[in-house]
Amino acid sequence: MTVIEKPIALIVGAGDHLGAAIARRFATEGYHIVATRRRGDLAALVSDVRSLGSDATALFSDARDEEEVLALVEKVESELGPISVAVFNVGGNVRFGITETTTQVYRKVWEMCALAGFLVGREVAKKMLPREQGTIIFTGASASVRGSSGFAAFAGGKHALRALAQSMSRELGPKGIHVAHVIVDGLIENEATKAFLPDLFASKGENGIIQPDDLAEVYWQLHKQPKTAWTFEQDVRPCAEQW
Amino acid sequence: MTVIEKPIALIVGAGDHLGAAIARRFATEGYHIVATRRRGDLAALVSDVRSLGSDATALFSDARDEEEVLALVEKVESELGPISVAVFNVGGNVRFGITETTTQVYRKVWEMCALAGFLVGREVAKKMLPREQGTIIFTGASASVRGSSGFAAFAGGKHALRALAQSMSRELGPKGIHVAHVIVDGLIENEATKAFLPDLFASKGENGIIQPDDLAEVYWQLHKQPKTAWTFEQDVRPCAEQW
Amino acid sequence: MTVIEKPIALIVGAGDHLGAAIARRFATEGYHIVATRRRGDLAALVSDVRSLGSDATALFSDARDEEEVLALVEKVESELGPISVAVFNVGGNVRFGITETTTQVYRKVWEMCALAGFLVGREVAKKMLPREQGTIIFTGASASVRGSSGFAAFAGGKHALRALAQSMSRELGPKGIHVAHVIVDGLIENEATKAFLPDLFASKGENGIIQPDDLAEVYWQLHKQPKTAWTFEQDVRPCAEQW
Amino acid sequence: MTVIEKPIALIVGAGDHLGAAIARRFATEGYHIVATRRRGDLAALVSDVRSLGSDATALFSDARDEEEVLALVEKVESELGPISVAVFNVGGNVRFGITETTTQVYRKVWEMCALAGFLVGREVAKKMLPREQGTIIFTGASASVRGSSGFAAFAGGKHALRALAQSMSRELGPKGIHVAHVIVDGLIENEATKAFLPDLFASKGENGIIQPDDLAEVYWQLHKQPKTAWTFEQDVRPCAEQW
Repeated sequence: MTVIEKPIALIVGAGDHLGAAIARRFATEGYHIVATRRRGDLAALVSDVRSLGSDATALFSDARDEEEVLALVEKVESELGPISVAVFNVGGNVRFGITETTTQVYRKVWEMCALAGFLVGREVAKKMLPREQGTIIFTGASASVRGSSGFAAFAGGKHALRALAQSMSRELGPKGIHVAHVIVDGLIENEATKAFLPDLFASKGENGIIQPDDLAEVYWQLHKQPKTAWTFEQDVRPCAEQW
Repeated sequence: MTVIEKPIALIVGAGDHLGAAIARRFATEGYHIVATRRRGDLAALVSDVRSLGSDATALFSDARDEEEVLALVEKVESELGPISVAVFNVGGNVRFGITETTTQVYRKVWEMCALAGFLVGREVAKKMLPREQGTIIFTGASASVRGSSGFAAFAGGKHALRALAQSMSRELGPKGIHVAHVIVDGLIENEATKAFLPDLFASKGENGIIQPDDLAEVYWQLHKQPKTAWTFEQDVRPCAEQW
Repeated sequence: MTVIEKPIALIVGAGDHLGAAIARRFATEGYHIVATRRRGDLAALVSDVRSLGSDATALFSDARDEEEVLALVEKVESELGPISVAVFNVGGNVRFGITETTTQVYRKVWEMCALAGFLVGREVAKKMLPREQGTIIFTGASASVRGSSGFAAFAGGKHALRALAQSMSRELGPKGIHVAHVIVDGLIENEATKAFLPDLFASKGENGIIQPDDLAEVYWQLHKQPKTAWTFEQDVRPCAEQW
Repeated sequence: MTVIEKPIALIVGAGDHLGAAIARRFATEGYHIVATRRRGDLAALVSDVRSLGSDATALFSDARDEEEVLALVEKVESELGPISVAVFNVGGNVRFGITETTTQVYRKVWEMCALAGFLVGREVAKKMLPREQGTIIFTGASASVRGSSGFAAFAGGKHALRALAQSMSRELGPKGIHVAHVIVDGLIENEATKAFLPDLFASKGENGIIQPDDLAEVYWQLHKQPKTAWTFEQDVRPCAEQW
């Protein structure tokens, strides 16, 4: 059994640009990164973290699956060390009119947004509670606070995740666990999405797209807050965004 | 095939005092009531409706089950007539600390609060859209707008239901369908609950408990609103409630 | 001294279409109307109320002026009778970019929206408290819950009015006074405004303009609510409104 | 005319512990501090700033007075240099039942919370707009988002300030000006208040009081955010606070 000396940052949903940027941000502060996603590649992320002078463990895990989340958290805590900060960054943005939203889609979006957040949040909280410290950050969206035409499924999942975060914050804050919710309002820079939706990205103009590294800074600042001044929720958007 | 002459009010979740009161309120206006619950008794409700000079059809149906909801809506529309108003009144209030909330509970509460609301709302909307009229009312709670310690599951389900209602309202309003959300804040009169929690009920004092008939009036008024003045959301509480 | 037998409805800001419609709605229920505005005409409104079989007292009073509000409430209570319901319906919608908003405009809009609401609400509450009953309804707008570009002054006044209503509701509800806030979201039918802004009105299409009589119904229903089921807040918009 | 080489931070309402802490925080980053309050002492603050290696200008100015705010902003910009960041930190927390709230109190609290914020925000925005950069931060409270019994005046002022901040953010964000609103939820450490309300402070327990320096960090981080990731609003509370 190897126990990491560094504090540990668990990034669940590290497969997108934001997850990778959060991993790099914590790596520059000397955190050991545990990066998870369901499937796909994490080698570039691990390499980036190492080039920043820290180290990363890549684990494939389906955050919607209770057994996998239990195993993930157990493995990190027993083989690596105590989780200092956990970031839940799993999305599931889809758009369908209400009559075109299949039950499968409605359920799956909730499982990705809310059930997975619940499983990760609950299991990490169990480990943090005896230590009376730790940070759990959930990634939200404008759909977390507003239901819009075509977004019954996504807004439902994100509203439920926000309710989870708020409930956990009120319960766990007085016990020393910092629970926070970041409302991301706008497009995050992403070459693949930009290639797929060039007109949308172009329409946003200068300072209209969120740079992942800038957004990742918010997560670091939230984790760094001392117990006498905790933020539960903050919104983040590019300056040119209409809201 | 018998087609009812009266306009039809579908009450999904008619097994509690509020559901029964809503059924009676619409019955007094000459609506034919279709009252559903998953299991249990509906005979008293049917009898009450008849004593008010209208008629009711009692159907047992699990609102969390897609096949059953499809069959329910199909049966009402084909055998009875077009649904004028649908009320979704299924709850699932539980209280557990976050680490004591099982995955089964978290999922079940969401299925009762949100998935069932989605299935009923979507299927009824499909029928109402070609007619460009109809009302769909969802029953919410204070947990719909606030996550509290011990309420991660219930607040998650209710937040998701509100997101559904708001998304549907924005999409379907311009198409003539009135979608509304009632935030019930406080205890509803209920002999069984009162017998179980006598101190809680006693602590509320005079005018501290919501009378179901008074609350049911709100549902009727929402349905009666003409297209030039629709309410999406209103809260209802007894005058003595602290909020 | 003549004391009116009928219950009394005080409508402060009765000079617009909504104020007039509220007056007519309560008149049809047998209320004696006390209609006030700062200046202008109230003869048509009085005539309308009389044609509905009730009676009205027209009083000119500046709701922003403490002395005038004290005198108004005193006069109604001593010369006519106890106020059953008071509606505060004074607006002040202006649109200016922040750097073009003069201090005079910013102050005047607040005086119309909030200070006047405070004066009327406080003075009426003083009379209602010993009776442990009565209704006070404030007219809000979408700017009550959202600050938008160009609306720093109007949103400021309306947010402050909503804060007043919510504070009064929490304080006075347990003492038997029903305080409510109606969020009007959309254009209200008004020939003068329509003549001034024909394109705006035309753009709203069918069912895109609020009919004052339909909106007035909401005020009546709020007043009629029994103490076990009070609404503090509800939004109202035409079905075609984008929100 | 002396022009300061350092970037300038204008702190309006520098007389309390939070204002002083914000001044010190920006001083450590090399900002020249312009500290204002209506009257009283600022010598200790200037001394603190100098001991941190920067410098401060203390100015006495009534933020509720248009002429004084115009003169203040003009003086800073013409004699010292361009304002990089302005913090509006004027409060006015009072508690009175609605019938005990005098018109003078209601008006004065609004002038302190909202009118003063409007004057400072507008005048600073006029200077920042041609430069297409700059930060304006407003200090809010839990009363900014919730009206409570006894807080009609304070909640009214704070709601209006939040509406101002939101309106300015939506208008000025796309023009390069970062407007932000900090919701302070809880007691801020303050010897004078603690001596006056010892039981209240004692009841908060460990980690129950906000330390000004920790809160000041939030203001600095907001100012540091790049244009692609701006926060409009965040709440801050001590971990033990019930909310």
